[in-house]
This record gives sequence, C-alpha cells and structure tokens, in this order.
Amino acid sequence: MSPLANDTLLRALARERTEYTPLWLMRQAGRYLPEYNLTRARAGSFLALMRSPELCVEVALQPLERYRLDAAIVFSDILAVPDAMGLGLRFTEGEGPRFAHPVREEQEVARLAAPDPASLAYVMDAVRATRRALAGRVPLIGFAGSPYTLACYMVEGAASEDFPALKRMLYARPDLLHRILEVNAQAVADCLNAQVEAGAQVLMLFDTWGGNLSAAAYEEFSLAYSRRVFESLARESEGRRVPVILYTRGGGNWLEAMAASGCDAVGLDWTVDPRDARRRIGQRVALQGNLDPAALLAPPEQARTEARRVLEAFGPAPGHVFNLGHGISPLANPESVAAVVDEVRTHSRKMRSQS
Amino acid sequence: MSPLANDTLLRALARERTEYTPLWLMRQAGRYLPEYNLTRARAGSFLALMRSPELCVEVALQPLERYRLDAAIVFSDILAVPDAMGLGLRFTEGEGPRFAHPVREEQEVARLAAPDPASLAYVMDAVRATRRALAGRVPLIGFAGSPYTLACYMVEGAASEDFPALKRMLYARPDLLHRILEVNAQAVADCLNAQVEAGAQVLMLFDTWGGNLSAAAYEEFSLAYSRRVFESLARESEGRRVPVILYTRGGGNWLEAMAASGCDAVGLDWTVDPRDARRRIGQRVALQGNLDPAALLAPPEQARTEARRVLEAFGPAPGHVFNLGHGISPLANPESVAAVVDEVRTHSRKMRSQS
Repeated sequence: MSPLANDTLLRALARERTEYTPLWLMRQAGRYLPEYNLTRARAGSFLALMRSPELCVEVALQPLERYRLDAAIVFSDILAVPDAMGLGLRFTEGEGPRFAHPVREEQEVARLAAPDPASLAYVMDAVRATRRALAGRVPLIGFAGSPYTLACYMVEGAASEDFPALKRMLYARPDLLHRILEVNAQAVADCLNAQVEAGAQVLMLFDTWGGNLSAAAYEEFSLAYSRRVFESLARESEGRRVPVILYTRGGGNWLEAMAASGCDAVGLDWTVDPRDARRRIGQRVALQGNLDPAALLAPPEQARTEARRVLEAFGPAPGHVFNLGHGISPLANPESVAAVVDEVRTHSRKMRSQS
Repeated sequence: MSPLANDTLLRALARERTEYTPLWLMRQAGRYLPEYNLTRARAGSFLALMRSPELCVEVALQPLERYRLDAAIVFSDILAVPDAMGLGLRFTEGEGPRFAHPVREEQEVARLAAPDPASLAYVMDAVRATRRALAGRVPLIGFAGSPYTLACYMVEGAASEDFPALKRMLYARPDLLHRILEVNAQAVADCLNAQVEAGAQVLMLFDTWGGNLSAAAYEEFSLAYSRRVFESLARESEGRRVPVILYTRGGGNWLEAMAASGCDAVGLDWTVDPRDARRRIGQRVALQGNLDPAALLAPPEQARTEARRVLEAFGPAPGHVFNLGHGISPLANPESVAAVVDEVRTHSRKMRSQS
C-alpha cells in the first residue's frame, strides 16, 4: 500500500494539531456533479452503478479531481446491507429506495439473519479498488447505516415522513424491533470490519433517522445498538487506529450520550451550535460538521461567508473536521462548493496561525 | 361570558399548583376522529370547513365530547393568514397545502402586506362562536404560525423536505426574507390580538419549521420575529393574563433562547428529554408536551404506558401541560387516545398527592 500523502483527517480525528481544518462532504460523489450524472447514466441505474466496483471507483474519485478534499468515501448505499438480507432493494425514480419485502410480521422478523458475506462482496471489491486508485492521496472512509436507521427502511419499506409502521412496531411490539436491531448490529459490524479489511481507513455510522425518536427511545433503540457495533469493531489496521464517526441527524439533544458511545468523533447536523457542542462534549471526541447543506444553493460568495461562520464557531482548537450537516443536495452549485473548499483551507490555516 | 368551570390549563401555564396535569392534544380536532371526517365530508373540502364558522365550532367541540380535555382550540389553519395576503391557498388531496402565488421575486416581496382584517373575519367568527358554544367548560386556545414557518410555505409554495427555495433566499437574499418576516410578524400579531378580542384565552405560536435552521439562522430568522410578535400582543383580556405558548418542532437545541423570548410556556417536541428541558429552563416558563404522537398508533395499554413515562419525566412540579410532541396522526387509535387521557388525569393526580 502507498503511504498516506495527506493524513490531515486522521490527525484531526485523533484531536492532534493540524495545519488546517480537513474537509470532506457527505455524499460528495453525487448528483450535483455533472460528471457523476454522466457515469450514472452510463450505468443505467443507481443499483447498477452501486454494484459495479469499477464505476464506484470512478464516481468516488470525481469530487477529488474537482476539489481539494481531505478524504474519499466508498461509493455505496447504506441499504446494501438489508438488500443482502434478501429484502429486495429497488430505486424508483423521484421516490427513492423501496424494499420489495419489508419486515413486519413475526415470522418475517424470525427469519431475518445477517447476510452471507459473499452477498456484499461487490461492496468490498469497490473498497479495495477505490483504495488502490487513491494511491495514498487521502484516506478512504468506509460506512454503514446505523442498526436503527436500517430498521426504519426495513420495517417501513421506504423513506417516510414519520415511519408509522416502524413506530407502531416500536411501541406495540418492541420485542420484534429489538430482534431486528440485534441482527442489524451484527450485520453492520461485519460489514464495517470487512470494509476495514478491504482497505477503509476511517469508518462512519450514519444514523439518519435516529432523530425521529424520543430521548428514551433513542437510547434504547438507536444508541444501544450503535454502541454494540462499536464494541465489535477492529479498531486498528495497518498499524494505525481506525477512527469511527457517529452521525445522528437531529441528534442535538443527545450529544453527550453520542460522545460517550465509543466513537472517536460525533457528526453534527446543521442545527447544532458548534460552540454549544464543544461546551457539552469537551475534548472527549472530535467533532465533524456542520454547514447547512442549503448554503450551497447560494452563490459562491455567500456560501463562502457561511463556511467561515462555521469555522469561527468551531474555533481554532484541534479536533474539527469540516463537513456539511447533512448530505449535499443535488441542487448544490458546484462553484459554491469550490468556494467553500477554498475558504475552509485558507481561513482555517489563518485561524490556526493566529491562535 | 360564562365563568370558566375548568381553568386548570390557565393555572398550569401560570405555574400554579393544580390537582392534576391538564391535557390537550395538538390537532385534537382531526382526521383520527370518524365524526370529524363526516363533518369534513359534509363541508366538501378542508377549505370550506375552515371557512364555515358553524362547522368550525362543530369540529372544535367533537374531541371534548369524547375525551376529558382541558382546552379547546380554535379550528383553523396557520395558512389562513398568508391566504388572506392573496397567495391563493389550495389543498390538494394527499399532498397538503399549496399556494397558487408563492412569493419569490423582489417585486412580489415588495408588494406583500399584512392582510385587511376583513379577510380574516371568518376566523374571528369561528373564535367567537366556539367560545360561546364552550359556555365556560374549558378555555379556548387561539393560534397562528410563526412568521418564519409561514414564510417557509409562502416562499416554497408548499411543504417540502428541505425548502430549497426558502433556503436559497435565506442565504442569497436575506434582505428579501427579512422583509417577508416583518410583514408576517405584523400580520401574526394582528391575527392573534383579534383572536383574543374575539374570545381566545390562551395563544399558541406554531413554529413547525424553525427546526430546519442552523442555530444562528434560527435566532435571526425565526426567534427574532416570534419575539416581535410577543411584544405586540395584548397580554390581558377579561381581567386575566392571556398566556402564550411557543412551540418549535426540532427546537431542542434552543430551549433556553425560546424560554427567554417572552412566551409563558415552551412547547417541546417528542425528541426532548423533559428532565433535560426542566434542568435547562428552570422555572422561568411552563412546559408543554411531549408524548411521541406515534405512541397513539399502539394499542391502548402501550399508549398508556408511554403517557405515564412522560408524566414521570416531567415530575410532579407545577408548570406542566400534557400534550403530544407534534400534531396527532390521522392513524392514531381513538381508543388509545382515551387511554392516554385517562392515564394523564389519574396518574398525575396520584403523583401530586404523593409529592
């Protein structure tokens, strides 16, 4: 393996001093990039793209060609794991993902099992190939959905405003949901460990829907199972720690608990005040975030101003990874992304030299 | 006017001791009730229902016939105010509200003005008639959308997952959004004052979308204008204080600021831990909330258990109004609502007698 030319992300996640604030963007390989849309059109569908390791490498590297980013992220989808459990993933145009076989009845839950690793071999091939193609430029991030977030899709069958089927199960038959979450925790830990085995150098757990839970239910149905995942992870590879980032959209109420879950960094959505987050969490973990993705809908100069505000709010102390507070929008202006990337690099360097 | 037979809600909002925890439910007159659906069908459409003071009285009283609730709320819609500004409100089946004339261009923003009170006369007629029909059983709550939440619909034209048109304006042309918010603050204050004049005894400001803002933007674009509304309200009527409740969905990050905004009570969504909220806010204001509306999708016994958990989390101290953390779902089980209402009344009485 090539030595890592830029390990700024890894050092920031370890809360070491860095010359500038490292930056990557959630969903940075995505529909806001014309070159991504071309590759996706060539693939024929999102599923075909996701299942082609060669095309996954291509789109994972595209944002790095345009922008000075400090990490690449494996191109895949959090629903690859439940798909590999036999739920039948489909993407319908304009509607997003949908499972042909949602898991709701007692017998369906009983039958559920962590997938055969062979059924996720295409993901590991993509990890290996992307790592090779990066040739040590920047670290490669592997990822998975949290056990709870996967369960949301698995029970509901699709994204939803308020996930009534999932919530009905949670309140009426918590035993069934706990069983799904146990299977998911195992499946997610296996999948993340396999990604590290295949070359991932950082891991991220996306708890996209954890924020739809009450405080008590978040602890019981989401965080408890993320914790179980963290406990099952090999935390070192190639002689280096593999840091783990936990992101919960709408998790602002529970930052202390997230920071104590066994992760190395907490991902903040854009609604959290970074000063508050640092005050509440202290230096226990690194923080990632948290520009409002909608700032990238504005022209470059306004987007730049918002990025500077975020940097100033986090301050010059070590342990900040710049990112959006949620995935980049297909409507994001690529020129505004360029302005943000430039601002983060130059302004954070200035902040550090003055501190 | 008849004297108030049950003023438990008013006393709880004033943080006085009450014999039990008063309860009402956001959107308590709604589609989960078969009798509501019959009246709505009779009206022909939601708009026709909302514009008929007589039918508004009918549906506002329906939940009181079924359940021992401690308040009635005027039947109307937060979008009545922008509709009265000429934006052309429509309700499309399954899609929710939509404005024929969203406000996006500079000239459209410049033309915007607070509505002629005559165009909201039908709302005030509904307030007067509902107050009369209540005959002092329980207090009547008047309400409006927050200036920011109204702006979300006015700029976007409809509800949205992430309100890209609104957000683009916020970041690219904040001057335009500020002008809309100024007009809205005036319109909302006028509408609330008119409701008090017509007989409302409590006011509630619904900031349904404030939670989609960054912390800095929440202060600048939402809370600043809610504060302006509170400053413009007549706070007494019929020799009694008219308490105001401020609810922001996703507002858990900003409870301290909400509590300091000039309101009498903060409405909590279901993601906030009531113990945290009380610790952060102290006794400065009353708290309202915060059962997960999805608990009402479960059978009565499980819904009852969840209601008890919420009561226990708030504890026996004065200043709690039981409610959901968001509007009741059309899928709510009316039997489970009955169980929750019963549990709140009986268990809170027990808690108070033991404390």
